[in-house]
Amino acid sequence: MSFCFDYTVQFRDTDAAGVVYFANIISICHVGYEASLIESGIELKTFVGNSEFAVPITHVSADFLRPLYCGDRVKVELTPHAIDSCKFEIKHQILSTDPQVADRSLVLATATTKHVVIDPQTRKRRDFPESIVRWLAQWS
Amino acid sequence: MSFCFDYTVQFRDTDAAGVVYFANIISICHVGYEASLIESGIELKTFVGNSEFAVPITHVSADFLRPLYCGDRVKVELTPHAIDSCKFEIKHQILSTDPQVADRSLVLATATTKHVVIDPQTRKRRDFPESIVRWLAQWS
Amino acid sequence: MSFCFDYTVQFRDTDAAGVVYFANIISICHVGYEASLIESGIELKTFVGNSEFAVPITHVSADFLRPLYCGDRVKVELTPHAIDSCKFEIKHQILSTDPQVADRSLVLATATTKHVVIDPQTRKRRDFPESIVRWLAQWS
Amino acid sequence: MSFCFDYTVQFRDTDAAGVVYFANIISICHVGYEASLIESGIELKTFVGNSEFAVPITHVSADFLRPLYCGDRVKVELTPHAIDSCKFEIKHQILSTDPQVADRSLVLATATTKHVVIDPQTRKRRDFPESIVRWLAQWS
Repeated sequence: MSFCFDYTVQFRDTDAAGVVYFANIISICHVGYEASLIESGIELKTFVGNSEFAVPITHVSADFLRPLYCGDRVKVELTPHAIDSCKFEIKHQILSTDPQVADRSLVLATATTKHVVIDPQTRKRRDFPESIVRWLAQWS
Repeated sequence: MSFCFDYTVQFRDTDAAGVVYFANIISICHVGYEASLIESGIELKTFVGNSEFAVPITHVSADFLRPLYCGDRVKVELTPHAIDSCKFEIKHQILSTDPQVADRSLVLATATTKHVVIDPQTRKRRDFPESIVRWLAQWS
Repeated sequence: MSFCFDYTVQFRDTDAAGVVYFANIISICHVGYEASLIESGIELKTFVGNSEFAVPITHVSADFLRPLYCGDRVKVELTPHAIDSCKFEIKHQILSTDPQVADRSLVLATATTKHVVIDPQTRKRRDFPESIVRWLAQWS
Repeated sequence: MSFCFDYTVQFRDTDAAGVVYFANIISICHVGYEASLIESGIELKTFVGNSEFAVPITHVSADFLRPLYCGDRVKVELTPHAIDSCKFEIKHQILSTDPQVADRSLVLATATTKHVVIDPQTRKRRDFPESIVRWLAQWS
């Protein structure tokens, strides 16, 4: 079951071309990822700054299909799955939820991110902590 | 009546000191301002890029009282008021809504912004458009 | 001949994990792209907001090989090439220039971006303007 | 003697109004502050993430006098001074360096920031470390 998150495009997301700056579209996907962690009962403050594990992103690829404008209401949909015991991937989609758009499943952008769990001291790979195992089970 | 807006601190808001980057605290206030405009029926896309008026910010002053961490749930409270026929001011407060904080009205940051309505071609001041008059009446 | 650009990692580029936020690594590549345009005599202000053409990014893919820290001095190297008459691709590399790193060609991140030239009114593809033809010839 | 820093306005600094997003003008001042620290021989990586001291910003006030556009070349000028043994203030000015502007000392924005030195564990104030004493002496 995918995780869904409603997002309103913010003024700071845009640039002088009048639409969302391309790298910020990827950041919006990350905001959805954060919301999915919170929804699974993970406290972000300890997820980010703890001494047991860190989860850096090693890869991203994204396609920007249609421009996003300030104030646009969109839905961020994401599905994670494990690649191995210390690496997972997330498929993200940003969909229009504009009531004036006939096709409510209009895809504005897609992205794939790869995340690897490491020991923050040694920066070597380690197995998923329990919290990530649960999160993967919930949204895969 | 002030406008209130719930906000969850995002990972991109933070910096290597482990807390929200100071300028992003001000951006969070602006996200609240955008939400108040939407709540008044103003479409942000046309508010931003139209040929009739623009509303640049001419001044900001802010006090950062306590650190904000990734994942913190906060309430952004704002009250605008007209200074003259083409200038208005907004008082912003960011308050903790952490259920573990005894004092739910704990102020994390305050900010004041000044905004002036101009003609985007000449960049000269002009009177408030009808939409801003209504927005001021609603939240003052 | 590739274009090279020196960049010092800024505090605002980082996040609470203590290293550069992944999407900002891609933004740093874009800062290099902007510098290459300026170096070719292109004025960014008119490149961005003109009525003749716009150059949205349609795709990005990036690999983040090593963490970047606040204050790190890096070199952004980029090589563009035309895909067809209205689309080009840029290969980006971020390299360490830390004097304490023995291997000065240590690659920290790589990225590929795809850009398409459109008419900003119709958002339909159009041929490269003269300025982009010259820029491609200079750095390919 | 003030510290001066050359900066080219980046695409990511701008927003859909076509000019630099107000909070990013303050971030540009901070980039100048970082450059002044580096120029004084301070390594940013250890300045930011050490266990001895942290230097949060407690206050900012800024006036935005003229719009900044993508690609604009500006000069960031800053002068710090001690307020007491654990608090200092920085006056920032962003000036046009556009060769087509007759008045090369045209001020685009001004800002004042207040910074306090704390113990990162207790978050209580402590005296300036030696590095900040030297930095203040150099640029005051």
